[in-house]
Amino acid sequence: MKQELYFSNEVASTIEEVVAQINPSKIFVLVDTNTAYFVLPQLQQTSQIIANAKVITIPAGDLNKNLESLSLVWRELTLESASRSSLLINVGGGVVCDLGGFAAATYKRGIHCVNIPTTLLAAVDAAVGGKTAVNFQGLKNQIGVFREPDAVIISSIFFKTLNQHEILSGYAEMIKHALLKSEKEFARVMKFSPIDSLNNNDEYLEMLRDNVAIKADVVKKDPTEKGLRKALNLGHTAGHALEELSLERKNPIAHGYAVAWGLVIDAVLSSMLFNFSSDTLHTLANFVKENYGAYDISCKDYPHLIELMRQDKKNPDADHITFSLLKAPGKLELDAVATSEQISAALDIFCDLMGI
Amino acid sequence: MKQELYFSNEVASTIEEVVAQINPSKIFVLVDTNTAYFVLPQLQQTSQIIANAKVITIPAGDLNKNLESLSLVWRELTLESASRSSLLINVGGGVVCDLGGFAAATYKRGIHCVNIPTTLLAAVDAAVGGKTAVNFQGLKNQIGVFREPDAVIISSIFFKTLNQHEILSGYAEMIKHALLKSEKEFARVMKFSPIDSLNNNDEYLEMLRDNVAIKADVVKKDPTEKGLRKALNLGHTAGHALEELSLERKNPIAHGYAVAWGLVIDAVLSSMLFNFSSDTLHTLANFVKENYGAYDISCKDYPHLIELMRQDKKNPDADHITFSLLKAPGKLELDAVATSEQISAALDIFCDLMGI
Repeated sequence: MKQELYFSNEVASTIEEVVAQINPSKIFVLVDTNTAYFVLPQLQQTSQIIANAKVITIPAGDLNKNLESLSLVWRELTLESASRSSLLINVGGGVVCDLGGFAAATYKRGIHCVNIPTTLLAAVDAAVGGKTAVNFQGLKNQIGVFREPDAVIISSIFFKTLNQHEILSGYAEMIKHALLKSEKEFARVMKFSPIDSLNNNDEYLEMLRDNVAIKADVVKKDPTEKGLRKALNLGHTAGHALEELSLERKNPIAHGYAVAWGLVIDAVLSSMLFNFSSDTLHTLANFVKENYGAYDISCKDYPHLIELMRQDKKNPDADHITFSLLKAPGKLELDAVATSEQISAALDIFCDLMGI
Repeated sequence: MKQELYFSNEVASTIEEVVAQINPSKIFVLVDTNTAYFVLPQLQQTSQIIANAKVITIPAGDLNKNLESLSLVWRELTLESASRSSLLINVGGGVVCDLGGFAAATYKRGIHCVNIPTTLLAAVDAAVGGKTAVNFQGLKNQIGVFREPDAVIISSIFFKTLNQHEILSGYAEMIKHALLKSEKEFARVMKFSPIDSLNNNDEYLEMLRDNVAIKADVVKKDPTEKGLRKALNLGHTAGHALEELSLERKNPIAHGYAVAWGLVIDAVLSSMLFNFSSDTLHTLANFVKENYGAYDISCKDYPHLIELMRQDKKNPDADHITFSLLKAPGKLELDAVATSEQISAALDIFCDLMGI
């Protein structure tokens, strides 16, 4: 299925255009308890299509990205006799897009699906690329399929309801995309101000258009992560380990923050293993330190962090810890393998750079 | 993913060949409580690969083709740290192949999967074509995805443990395939004896090879049932209605029997609407009557049967009842629409032909 990306701050008319192309027999809107309150009423006022659609609401939060919420969606679709030509429109952040995408991919073996991401993180990450999923047994995104939505409508008008923390969380993925693309894109994201620019919708949309295109291009070339798509894991092996550590400490950090710190760790490893430029590493580390602060780890945490990296689902087996690294912005080193000693050394440098 | 079909009565060596090609990091075998008892011990004796694999067992029967059994498989895979390069080998009938296929398609967004169908019905139907699914809220195959297994190993050696009823149930799908192919294939299945031929493994395998190729060819041309694949619904709209009626009567009939009768009803409709030859209709009706007997319906059941056909998930909406019909064996009429009156008339003729 071909995924169409729409960048528009005229959301209602874009919805009309997309729905006219799909021509569904019935329309459902999936929201969580947050977007039901903060976003849906406004969309219902401007869009006749959304106003007339049947609304399905799941509880908000990653803890509810589970089989129970998924069954709720399947049940509502069943009760309302959704057919294969029905359409599910996901209006929300990553949880709604991922879980709704999986529900749509599996109900009657697949119905139409459109994502309208309402957070910056979802717009640049979850909504695009077809990685649908739910958590299972405490493991993130353990159950899912690769299945791209029919369309994604990306708009910056929703982001004004987000707090600074949420904006920065999304921006980490944009930094990642820029690192994958080129020196020039990297310089651009280092200069852009993700918070202040919210006042300029056109400028923001332009930035999103270019940045999301980087991810869409990678996904198009390798939809099921056999090769190139692994590039998108930049910052994520170390990032996920920090995220899980924070869960164990019962003081969870946002995914995007973990990715921002993970990007610095991966840049350190890249500089150790592939001569990634020290200047670029410092530019990145300073940007991250200034905007995201630092996460408090010490050398006592290293063995456990390395163990968590070892368990990452992207590793082919338990004996190797693989990373997606860089020779330079835009120059990828997929399937890089680092030893425990190298990772420990990288974590030491990371702590220095972050001033921990 | 390309699906490889292996027709072999040397199952152990074929498993070796298939596994060598996939080169999985870990191997899991899914069985149900029936195949765990009747098939697995023998496979474990002949195949070192099966003997060393981790076995996952689900309860047998269509009633257990549900989210609970699916979660059991996901849980076992998780507990045993299955990775994306792991392999799940489904050893069983339709329930095991459908549910195991869905589990493999969704665990970590997809691991390797091989089907070893142990019933004739699964060999000619469920194991091939990638329609994975579980039942949900009493609706058959309501949740699933299209995802072909890496390989299917079809062998007739397992069929000797089946009773006559089970063999005939599978044979109905073979008659369907023959009707979709040509006059010649149809004549061939009318002459073949599915029970007596069990004594000749080579002859049976040859028949399966040609017959399954018909389905595989249709699936290859239209994996997600946008067009041509609807041909495989021949006999199924009416068949499913009879099957559901039998469930309501608390005296369930086998799927294959319902399909056999459904094929006769569809042949009647084909002759009414598209001049399908009366001779061919009578040949089919006599074969079905002789081998499958008749299912007891009367004109009082027609309105309810028609209502059940209306609810079929393949209909685009509730106002149309669509059938896959034939002008002649090998000449398809997809998306044929019949009125209630026409269906009633067809059911009358069906009762006459079956001597009800």
